[in-house]
Amino acid sequence: MSTEASTRASSRVGELIAGMTLEEKLAQLVGLWEGRGGTGEGGDVAPMQDAMQADDTGFEAFAAHGLGQLTRPFGTAPVDPVEGALALAAKQRWLVEHTRLGIPALVHEECLTGLAAWKATTFPAPLSWGASFDPALVEQMGAAIGASMRSLGVHQGLAPVLDVVRDARWGRVEECISEDPYVVGTIATAYVRGVQSTGVIATLKHFVGYSASRAGRNLAPVHAGPREVADVLLPPFEMAVLDGGVDSVMNSYAEVDGLPAAADADLLTGVLRDRWGFTGTVVADYFAVAFLHTLHKVATDLGDAAAQAIAAGIDVELPTGNAYLQPLTDRVRSGELPESVVDRALERVLRQKARLGLLDRQPEDYADVGAIDLDPPEHRALAARLAEESVVLLSNDGTLPLAAPSRVAVVGPNADDTAALFGCYSFLNHVLSLHEGVEPGLEIASVLEALRAELPAAAITHARGADVDTDDTSGFAEAVAAARDAELCVAVVGDRAGLFGRGTSGEGCDADSLDLPGVQRLLVEELLETGTPVVLVLLTGRPYAVDWALDRCAAVVQAFFPGQEGAATVAGVLSGRINPSGRLPVSMPRSVGAQPYSYLHPPLGGASSVSNLDTAPVRPFGHGLSYTTFTHTDLRIAASQVPTDGAIVVSCRVTNTGDRAGADVVQLYATDVVASVTRPVAQLLGYARVHLEPGQSADVELDVPTHRLAFTDRRMVRVVEPGAVRLFVGRSCAEQVLTGEVELTGPVHEISTADRRVVGVRVTPA
Amino acid sequence: MSTEASTRASSRVGELIAGMTLEEKLAQLVGLWEGRGGTGEGGDVAPMQDAMQADDTGFEAFAAHGLGQLTRPFGTAPVDPVEGALALAAKQRWLVEHTRLGIPALVHEECLTGLAAWKATTFPAPLSWGASFDPALVEQMGAAIGASMRSLGVHQGLAPVLDVVRDARWGRVEECISEDPYVVGTIATAYVRGVQSTGVIATLKHFVGYSASRAGRNLAPVHAGPREVADVLLPPFEMAVLDGGVDSVMNSYAEVDGLPAAADADLLTGVLRDRWGFTGTVVADYFAVAFLHTLHKVATDLGDAAAQAIAAGIDVELPTGNAYLQPLTDRVRSGELPESVVDRALERVLRQKARLGLLDRQPEDYADVGAIDLDPPEHRALAARLAEESVVLLSNDGTLPLAAPSRVAVVGPNADDTAALFGCYSFLNHVLSLHEGVEPGLEIASVLEALRAELPAAAITHARGADVDTDDTSGFAEAVAAARDAELCVAVVGDRAGLFGRGTSGEGCDADSLDLPGVQRLLVEELLETGTPVVLVLLTGRPYAVDWALDRCAAVVQAFFPGQEGAATVAGVLSGRINPSGRLPVSMPRSVGAQPYSYLHPPLGGASSVSNLDTAPVRPFGHGLSYTTFTHTDLRIAASQVPTDGAIVVSCRVTNTGDRAGADVVQLYATDVVASVTRPVAQLLGYARVHLEPGQSADVELDVPTHRLAFTDRRMVRVVEPGAVRLFVGRSCAEQVLTGEVELTGPVHEISTADRRVVGVRVTPA
Repeated sequence: MSTEASTRASSRVGELIAGMTLEEKLAQLVGLWEGRGGTGEGGDVAPMQDAMQADDTGFEAFAAHGLGQLTRPFGTAPVDPVEGALALAAKQRWLVEHTRLGIPALVHEECLTGLAAWKATTFPAPLSWGASFDPALVEQMGAAIGASMRSLGVHQGLAPVLDVVRDARWGRVEECISEDPYVVGTIATAYVRGVQSTGVIATLKHFVGYSASRAGRNLAPVHAGPREVADVLLPPFEMAVLDGGVDSVMNSYAEVDGLPAAADADLLTGVLRDRWGFTGTVVADYFAVAFLHTLHKVATDLGDAAAQAIAAGIDVELPTGNAYLQPLTDRVRSGELPESVVDRALERVLRQKARLGLLDRQPEDYADVGAIDLDPPEHRALAARLAEESVVLLSNDGTLPLAAPSRVAVVGPNADDTAALFGCYSFLNHVLSLHEGVEPGLEIASVLEALRAELPAAAITHARGADVDTDDTSGFAEAVAAARDAELCVAVVGDRAGLFGRGTSGEGCDADSLDLPGVQRLLVEELLETGTPVVLVLLTGRPYAVDWALDRCAAVVQAFFPGQEGAATVAGVLSGRINPSGRLPVSMPRSVGAQPYSYLHPPLGGASSVSNLDTAPVRPFGHGLSYTTFTHTDLRIAASQVPTDGAIVVSCRVTNTGDRAGADVVQLYATDVVASVTRPVAQLLGYARVHLEPGQSADVELDVPTHRLAFTDRRMVRVVEPGAVRLFVGRSCAEQVLTGEVELTGPVHEISTADRRVVGVRVTPA
Repeated sequence: MSTEASTRASSRVGELIAGMTLEEKLAQLVGLWEGRGGTGEGGDVAPMQDAMQADDTGFEAFAAHGLGQLTRPFGTAPVDPVEGALALAAKQRWLVEHTRLGIPALVHEECLTGLAAWKATTFPAPLSWGASFDPALVEQMGAAIGASMRSLGVHQGLAPVLDVVRDARWGRVEECISEDPYVVGTIATAYVRGVQSTGVIATLKHFVGYSASRAGRNLAPVHAGPREVADVLLPPFEMAVLDGGVDSVMNSYAEVDGLPAAADADLLTGVLRDRWGFTGTVVADYFAVAFLHTLHKVATDLGDAAAQAIAAGIDVELPTGNAYLQPLTDRVRSGELPESVVDRALERVLRQKARLGLLDRQPEDYADVGAIDLDPPEHRALAARLAEESVVLLSNDGTLPLAAPSRVAVVGPNADDTAALFGCYSFLNHVLSLHEGVEPGLEIASVLEALRAELPAAAITHARGADVDTDDTSGFAEAVAAARDAELCVAVVGDRAGLFGRGTSGEGCDADSLDLPGVQRLLVEELLETGTPVVLVLLTGRPYAVDWALDRCAAVVQAFFPGQEGAATVAGVLSGRINPSGRLPVSMPRSVGAQPYSYLHPPLGGASSVSNLDTAPVRPFGHGLSYTTFTHTDLRIAASQVPTDGAIVVSCRVTNTGDRAGADVVQLYATDVVASVTRPVAQLLGYARVHLEPGQSADVELDVPTHRLAFTDRRMVRVVEPGAVRLFVGRSCAEQVLTGEVELTGPVHEISTADRRVVGVRVTPA
């Protein structure tokens, strides 16, 4: 928005606020989740249910004074897109026609792996985005998702998740992109740009700290100091705000060092607005306002919770406004809370509605919706491409790609189950699994079906063998027999994503062990006993401890949740039609006993001579094999020629030395030799995905602004310090191929948000 | 020391310093660990070796300018006490006669489970102190330890350990007292008082944060925020400084949120001296100064490390001065470090030597040492009493106490191994195990021998069955046969303590799993298969995940490392001669996957409906059974009658309702209903051990100053906030017996060290 337009909107909003009643004001600060009152999702989400009580009021009664947001009109039951869009339009029309101010609601939906609505394309889950190391492609996906939302009348999507993976046990790891903040930041920013390019608002979540909860338990306290928060957890959000221009942020449920984010003014206002200059809205994670009272016990009642939250900087209560209606009305009327605090949130909300054109809607704007296709071919193609770039080949004894096997046994609980392709926030696993007999409305192949299509000449047998998460071994014999009779066994195992304990991965589905769930490891070990080579395919929402399999299986393929085109991708990787090029966005852990773990550890955080235990992961961050080979040569390091640019320019030549086309991900890491505080032994500075034909070379240049080497010093100031920095190009964070060094000279340089990109530090190659 | 004496000493020390050369000054700030140069303890402590290089210089050459400390003259090889004391006296005499200033060295030793010297009484390890809930007895033990040190000419003991247990995986859990800061603080303060009552200096370690290292790995980074540090990790140290008057503190190796303690001026000077008024010395943990350079990489070289450490507040470099000699000399001479910083440390050291009388020693003071008995009967009696009070009966189906069994099989790797009774810092496991053929010089029975003595009428068979930590199952058959042939099987399993990977528990011996080490669980499960009742005795340095055993064994006895009288104690508990009265000082964990865990978790840190997993321990903090029964009645809660006392006075009546004498530990807990930050669901406020004859009652009164309810608020100020506090008397933190409530009234009250004990808060019983 231009400055002039902004000023006009501001004045318009100011006039509007001046004429609003307190009821009208607060109505704009809350959502309504229709039909989700006392009948929640089951006893397992009791606190969430307790927190939502008032929304069994009918829509018109609830919205009599207006309505800030409509919560998930498509995402909680299978609704035909056109019918749903028409029903939504009717509600908006009612708001325009029957409320005094005539302002429609802002409509939000979940959209993490694609719009969470019936018949919408379901893309790979975020770990696959990270594994692709391809922000440009993720941006295209974001634009596709945004277009689908826009076609339904949805204005805001509750994605992406920028939580930096800190503990593989946490159930929501599958919603995260990576354990590296820079990968999270670049990929998430691309997603934001894509979504927002369609005029739909993206929402950063969860601000901040959720992923570092104790023992990986959902909502458990976060033991993180302010330096870890500043240097690891906040940077992705900063990038998405400053580089992505995101318009909305959602708080984290978690408490960090005793203070829940929803009540943390230093975070929601100090960091986000005062330091980063964010001007959008902060929306509450569902029930998070009430949780200040009901779960965290830092508020005496709902009114206290609401007053703390709005004062801290939560502008909109979701999913349904309980705390921000009557309890907040009482607090303002009694003088306990200044109305100016309400007006501050209201102004942000109305400015956003103004930007969306919602202050000028006419009834006829909601007359028709046209044809809607939420799963067009171009979205499917994007889903396929992202899946193809994200499959990680962990190990391979040469069995892959397959040499036209004649008899193949395809076994395992995830072999013939399309649900295994999707994350917990996919509409299929989130909602449709609760509605018996409803078809997904999408063409989805299982891995078994895809392999049959991929290998038409092969005789393919199938045995399920085991469940994902029971201890039933009664199917082992059939699976072992199938493997014994085959030339090759493909074992497809892993997770079943679900919510609130209904899965082995997903929100509320944390892991006490990092063994494969249930008896799946036992099954694979029995398959291995047959002597038939076993290719292990992992459809999982977290990295598991599979060192035993890496040693013994012919190959191990980590596919995470690859989405609706993922089965064909897996089949294509096995056949060789697709050359795998994904790289691990998370470390493959050694054991649950070594958690939490991050490759970004200081010298004493990994293997060291002062502990008997080796915490090193069995496959490091950044690892991934290919069917071709790449060499890296000609490392050149230089200071940028622009005097004040403060960039280190690193280039190298990558050559495809094998006989197949393929893509490499060039990874540049740094080690700060000595710093005033402990620094990671390796930190990803930059990366680039490069596609190369056989024999082809490319020069890859990475410009690294020196602020990428910034950290929070002993004074708690963000600085770049002078001194030596070792650089290396690696096949992973643990495999150095080319090494060099730079010397940062000059005084300690303080970094601020305003001059984040340019620091006055000269770079002198060593 | 009186003010006048203090002033005199001060002036004396000032004059001394004024006349000292820089070499003489720095010589006073370092230790010398003779014979421990290039030949360290093995490749597994390489960084520690690298850090000590200069001490192959002979004593006289090293000490030519004087010597601050002599490191462990008794603790690194078996030395006859009298011979060792004479050799030490000869060195001191040399210092008095041959250095210009004639100041003897301050001599320090390890003394965690008793003086770590040959033939000295070895007491139970600290988890047993915690389990006793008996500070008075621990104080007596401290006095005994101090007397032994004094008899040898040792001035300072490197104990106790005040690290609050945060993760059962950490190898040094066995050196800790409890997961509750108040238990740690009260017990450790008692130990300090005991030791220092003999004129020997106690040393608090490790200041601060070491126990919260990531994944329980030794020296791994600590992810703790300042509120957790202030409210959980620091309070025990504060108590030992303010209530115990301790004279020395040792830094932690660990980094907290990126900053190693040895370079943390806010901690070592700001908190310790400026806030708490500490006036003693801060000594470096061994090699910790060098580690700033070699391991943490926050210093460019040894001189930088030394300058940072001494500026932060490390007064003495141990075990041997490398960084504080030549490198620091260079820094002072070059003007990089003001000599006043050296003088500040020196003054503290010399004032301490003055207090010890070391500035006035004459050669004839070191003429003779007299008779020395490091294991007199009164020390053994104390060791026995503490063992008796500390054994925790975890479960019992009525099999215990034993009803005169005629055939007993005693099996397990710890049944006939006296090393199983001791911690890693005992002389026997630390040093003597490295010297083949040297007798311990103490009378120590194994559990097997003790049971033979305890049950003279029983036919006792023995089979080892398994090792502690190998996967050898070849001994199972013999053990199973022995169990099958017996009326009762006693399985004695657990840890073997050692250092640097030479044990299953101890420094550098961290656990990746909380299953019993090696195949011990398998062995016990095979014993259970025989149908013979199995009594499981756990000699362990950490709580293990033994839920499977609690359900299936006839009884489970947790004895930790009970010391040299511990075998007889275990036998006595089994026979019923001793009525068990220990209470768990740590939670018995559910699984390694649930670590880290503490009973002091906020509402969302334990079991909750927002995660599928139950983190609740299988036996809670405070749990422990008895052979008699106790009832708790007549809860009375009142405000103290002293107007400004700010104490809640809670009393109840405890009655021994069984037919045996026994001891109960009355435990009072609090829950802060609503606070400005999240607070624990339960927090131990006070406790009292009460011995009662059958039918006897006692009224137990606990005075709880309201500052015990203080915490660090959102402003990072330590406060007591008004509001309701629920109180309960419990059999453990999880089993409430009597409940009440108080209302703290008035404004938010800021707590300072100066008025820590009295806060102006009225207490109104609900």
